[in-house]
Amino acid sequence: MASSAGLDRVLEPVGVLPQAAWRLDASPEISDDEIRVRVERLNLDAASYRQLAEKHGGDGAAIRAEVLEIVAARGKMHNPVTGSGGMLIGVVDEVGPRSPLGVKEGDRVATLVSLTLTPLRITDGLAGWDGLSEQVPAEGTAILFGRSIVGVLPDDLAPELSLAVYDVCGAPALTDRVVRSYPDARVAVLGGAGKSGSLALAAARMAGARTIGIVRNEQEAASLRGAGVADEVAIADARNPVEVAAAVGEPATITVVCVDVPGCEHGAILATAPGGTVIFFSMATSFPAAALGAEGLAADVTMLIGNGFVPGHAAFAVDLLRRVPAVRSLFEARIAGH
Amino acid sequence: MASSAGLDRVLEPVGVLPQAAWRLDASPEISDDEIRVRVERLNLDAASYRQLAEKHGGDGAAIRAEVLEIVAARGKMHNPVTGSGGMLIGVVDEVGPRSPLGVKEGDRVATLVSLTLTPLRITDGLAGWDGLSEQVPAEGTAILFGRSIVGVLPDDLAPELSLAVYDVCGAPALTDRVVRSYPDARVAVLGGAGKSGSLALAAARMAGARTIGIVRNEQEAASLRGAGVADEVAIADARNPVEVAAAVGEPATITVVCVDVPGCEHGAILATAPGGTVIFFSMATSFPAAALGAEGLAADVTMLIGNGFVPGHAAFAVDLLRRVPAVRSLFEARIAGH
Repeated sequence: MASSAGLDRVLEPVGVLPQAAWRLDASPEISDDEIRVRVERLNLDAASYRQLAEKHGGDGAAIRAEVLEIVAARGKMHNPVTGSGGMLIGVVDEVGPRSPLGVKEGDRVATLVSLTLTPLRITDGLAGWDGLSEQVPAEGTAILFGRSIVGVLPDDLAPELSLAVYDVCGAPALTDRVVRSYPDARVAVLGGAGKSGSLALAAARMAGARTIGIVRNEQEAASLRGAGVADEVAIADARNPVEVAAAVGEPATITVVCVDVPGCEHGAILATAPGGTVIFFSMATSFPAAALGAEGLAADVTMLIGNGFVPGHAAFAVDLLRRVPAVRSLFEARIAGH
Repeated sequence: MASSAGLDRVLEPVGVLPQAAWRLDASPEISDDEIRVRVERLNLDAASYRQLAEKHGGDGAAIRAEVLEIVAARGKMHNPVTGSGGMLIGVVDEVGPRSPLGVKEGDRVATLVSLTLTPLRITDGLAGWDGLSEQVPAEGTAILFGRSIVGVLPDDLAPELSLAVYDVCGAPALTDRVVRSYPDARVAVLGGAGKSGSLALAAARMAGARTIGIVRNEQEAASLRGAGVADEVAIADARNPVEVAAAVGEPATITVVCVDVPGCEHGAILATAPGGTVIFFSMATSFPAAALGAEGLAADVTMLIGNGFVPGHAAFAVDLLRRVPAVRSLFEARIAGH
């Protein structure tokens, strides 16, 4: 198990996992259970790109130079300020004989684990990138460990669309699993009009739940109503517990938090029925706020840290997108809006 | 529901829960579902007391003055720097006719919700406190909402012992519940020799699990072996994932994190079998480190935010202490050691 989590690639400090490491060995020779990918494009995490762009006042050449510097120094595109990475697209170049990932040479894939733990070498100086967008055309190699996640890009979807779906594919898969553990669930999704939110609603509905989407304004409400995945749509500020509980009404069996701003813990807890479950997918979730909030409310609710991995999650999310054209339209509108 | 969570006591900002509020109304008149407690002693949170003591260089009078100032300004003992509170002991003074808490006038109780959300008025200027310890003799009144948690102090246990048990009583109750959801569980507890850790081990064992306690050194190992709640005891640095996984050996069905230092997420995830559960009880847990860590390891594990409330948790923990004298001895040694 040890080698398949990439521990042999950690140069410093020794003993931590690749994500926690300062520096990885990104050399292209693979071990028995690794895979090498010929990189085509990096998709920088939005927070990471924003930090770089602000630091350099939008100077594309300086942004490009710093990305090259980070990758050279760390052996991975792990922004040391934001702590975030992104994903990449490429073509499988070589597959170790003991790789369990189920892909073959020539497959066009997206990595579903963060760039913060992916050994990366860039060989073209990012000559094809002007530094002015998160989408980075790149040549080089990346390594995937035995214990990793990779998604083959479907032929019928644009790569941008697949990437956007893969980015949030843990949410619908875990929502599906939790919904199926309750008879007759009512599911509230905070941030229901967003990417993870709309997929979570679609998954809940397919699994037989009644659904309510909570959104922040009339524009989002209209867009979510059009998607047809929410039996009800209501407007509330997700950071205001009283508003959220009033908007949800009858307490939800399951509340899914997909709003990426701090302070949504108490509303989600207050809106959930005793014995119910809150699933937190927002990276802005505060662990102490959730733990102390539930205690302070004497709320007997199960609180899950939204795990980005559920077996089969990528295929599950792509399948949802194909079966619910209105959700696909939501995604396409968001991508076009960028 | 709104009024019973104490929303009517929030003075500013309006619309948040009492814990998130800057200022509460601590007036002693109670509404129909509230309870008033005559305060005997505050038990300040360790982090809060340490911050005050360091700020004032151990000057007891200055520490006392600041505690009085905080309570007067905020209507609760909510340290604005650490964000933490503590608990209190007192005697029930008046019970509103619609209070659901099941206590009566004259009961000696401990509040099991944080002081950060408990309306508090101090009437003796803390004259009986020298400012030199977290234990604060105090006169005044505190209010408990309908939606709250309170524990009657058992006659057969010293109040300090009851308080220490109540402080961590969510851990054994939730561990018990999760263990019973798996057939034939093997449970690893990181920090097994501590208060929440030893109770979690005792609960897991009573529920029929095989148990392994992970501790940081030989002294803790000896003390845990003596308590007889762990089938195995092993030493590892909980922040080192490789050490933790090696110490646990055969992956655990359930891993419980009771080590109050940052960086224990990856080891816990790596030590848990696919389909297993990690329960995080440490307030030092990082939500993103857990979520991204599980994804990076392609780990199909359920991750629970340790909820400090499970119905009946206080009585359950006290019962464990009575049934496992060695765990009681561990607690008494820790209290004496302070």
